[in-house]
Amino acid sequence: MKKDIAVGVDIGGTNTVFGAVDESGNCLAKSAIKTTDFPDVAQFIDCLSTEIKSLLESKGLTERLCGIGIGAPNGNFYKGTIEYAPNLAWKGVINFADLMKNHFDVPVLLTNDANAAALGEKIYGGAKEMNDFILITLGTGLGSGFYSNGNLVYGHDGFAGELGHTIVLQEGRKCNCGRKGCLETYVSATGITKTVNELIAHTKIPSTLRDCPTEELNSKKIYEAAQINDSLAIKAFDYTCRVLALKLSDAVAITSPEAIFLFGGLAQAKEFIFEPVKEYLEEYLLPIFRNKVKILPSQLPENNAAILGASALIRNIKG
Amino acid sequence: MKKDIAVGVDIGGTNTVFGAVDESGNCLAKSAIKTTDFPDVAQFIDCLSTEIKSLLESKGLTERLCGIGIGAPNGNFYKGTIEYAPNLAWKGVINFADLMKNHFDVPVLLTNDANAAALGEKIYGGAKEMNDFILITLGTGLGSGFYSNGNLVYGHDGFAGELGHTIVLQEGRKCNCGRKGCLETYVSATGITKTVNELIAHTKIPSTLRDCPTEELNSKKIYEAAQINDSLAIKAFDYTCRVLALKLSDAVAITSPEAIFLFGGLAQAKEFIFEPVKEYLEEYLLPIFRNKVKILPSQLPENNAAILGASALIRNIKG
Repeated sequence: MKKDIAVGVDIGGTNTVFGAVDESGNCLAKSAIKTTDFPDVAQFIDCLSTEIKSLLESKGLTERLCGIGIGAPNGNFYKGTIEYAPNLAWKGVINFADLMKNHFDVPVLLTNDANAAALGEKIYGGAKEMNDFILITLGTGLGSGFYSNGNLVYGHDGFAGELGHTIVLQEGRKCNCGRKGCLETYVSATGITKTVNELIAHTKIPSTLRDCPTEELNSKKIYEAAQINDSLAIKAFDYTCRVLALKLSDAVAITSPEAIFLFGGLAQAKEFIFEPVKEYLEEYLLPIFRNKVKILPSQLPENNAAILGASALIRNIKG
Repeated sequence: MKKDIAVGVDIGGTNTVFGAVDESGNCLAKSAIKTTDFPDVAQFIDCLSTEIKSLLESKGLTERLCGIGIGAPNGNFYKGTIEYAPNLAWKGVINFADLMKNHFDVPVLLTNDANAAALGEKIYGGAKEMNDFILITLGTGLGSGFYSNGNLVYGHDGFAGELGHTIVLQEGRKCNCGRKGCLETYVSATGITKTVNELIAHTKIPSTLRDCPTEELNSKKIYEAAQINDSLAIKAFDYTCRVLALKLSDAVAITSPEAIFLFGGLAQAKEFIFEPVKEYLEEYLLPIFRNKVKILPSQLPENNAAILGASALIRNIKG
C-alpha cells in the first residue's frame, strides 16, 4: 500500500479542523472538533486522535497514512511544542507533538499556523517554483512565514517569522503581546476596525459605518462599505495598505523575496488590498528592489488552506 | 600540491586590499592597490590580477591557489557583478567575476562586503557553530549579512541583507539611496556625527565637541569625548544604540538569530555600544525572544577581517 496520505491539523482558538490530503494537495476527507470544548489538553488529544482515526477508517485511508502535520498558534517546529498561546486554554508549554505520537505510529510535526500556510503555498500552491518568498496571513492578527534559499526560516529557536510584531510606531497602539505599535495592531481584521473607530472619532468624514454599533463593526462590514464607495472605509483600507507596505519594504530589504503572498480574511478585500499595497511598496522600496517583487494572492483554496498547510509539513520532510 | 589557499579581495571606494588565506584563516601575505587610480575597470582588473599573481609567486603559493573571493559594494553573488555602486568610478553593471576569470583558472566568486563579513564570521570567526545569526558592519554606512538555516540569505536577486536601508522614520534624515529615514543615516560613523551636529544645534548640553570645526568632527572624536565623560557625546551614543536596537528587534522578529555580531569602526567604541544595544534590545523585543539573543563583537582580527571575509566565499563552496 502506498503511504501517500498526510493528515493536516489546524488548531484554532475556537475550532480545530483536520483532513486527509493526498500528494497533489487534494483534501479527500475532513472534519472538525471544537477546541474550546477541551480545557484539558490530554482530553483534547484523545478526542482528536480518535476522530482522525475514524475519519481515515471511514474513507479506507488508514493504511496510507504517512504522517501528521499540525499548525498551531505559538507552535514551535524544533520542539513540537505549543508555548504560551494566548488564545488557547492550555497554559504554559505543551509537548503537543510528543503527546500525539502516543496515538500514531507515523511522524508528527508541528509549527505555527503562518509557517504552515507558507509551507502549503510552497508544496501545493503558488510558490512551488520559488525559493525566496514571504507569506502574510491577514486574519484577527498578522502572521508571516519566510522562505529563504528554498527553506522555511525557523530561526535559532523555532519562532522566526513574526512580522506582525515588528514596530510601526514606538508609542502606537497597544498590542496583545504587551508592547505598543506592533504591525498587527494596524494591519489585520482587528487593526482596520480600530482604524475605522479612530476615523469615526477624530474626523468628520461621512460614512454609513457611523450608524453601525461599535461592537458590531468588523472588517467584513468595512469591506462592504468600501465596495459602495464609502469614503471613510476607503480611507481605512488605504491607511492599512500604506502601513503594511512600509513594513514589507523593510522585510524585502532584509530577505529580498521573489513574491509576497497575502492570505486570509482581510486579503479577500482584493481590490482594496493588492493594487494599493503594490503601489505603496514600490514607492517605499530601496531602488535596487523596485519592480522585482510580486504581490500575489495565495493559490490555496481558502476553505482547505489551513489543512493543506499543516499537511505540507509532512511533504517537506519527504522531499 | 594541496590546493588550500584562497585569495580574498576587498574592493573599497579608496583602497582595494587582497591577501592569501589558508584553511585556518591565517593571512599568509597581503597587499593593496588604490581603487581610485583606475577610472577604467579593465585596467583595474589587469593590475589587480598581476598583483595577486606576484604576491602568490613571492610566497611560493601559486600552485596552492584554490579560488578567489571578492567583497565589493553592491556586489551580486548570483551574477558576480558589481551593480551601480555609488562609491566606485565604474558605472552601471560590471561583470567583475567574469572579467577576473579571464586571468585565473580557479573559481572566482563575488558578494557584497557585508555578506562577505558574515561569511568570514561563519568560516573563521565567532559563528562557526551557528546556523542563524546576523552580522552588522558599522562603518561609513551600515551593512548587514543574515545567516539562516546555515546559509547566507542572498534573496531572490542576490541583494538581500540591507538592514541599513530599513526605515526608522518616514520623513527622517536624507539617505544616499534617495529615500529618507534609513537606519544607516542614524546608525553609522556618519549617522552619529549627524546626531552630534543636531544635538549641538538644538540643545544646550555642554560639550568639548562644540569647539570642534564641523568638517573635522567624526565618530573617532565623538568616541574620545565620550571616554572623558562628555555628556553630549554620551547622549549621541545612547541615541544611536536605541535606534539600532529598535530595528534589530524587527530583524529578530523576522529571523530569530542566535547572535548578532557588531563589526567595524563604530563598534570599536565597545563600552558605548554593546551593553546599551543589548539593554535596549531586551526592552524592545517580543517577549518570546527575550534573553535569547547574544550581542557579540566580531571574532575576526580587525586588520584582516575584510580579506578573510572575501576568502570565506571560497571555503563556503568547498564545505
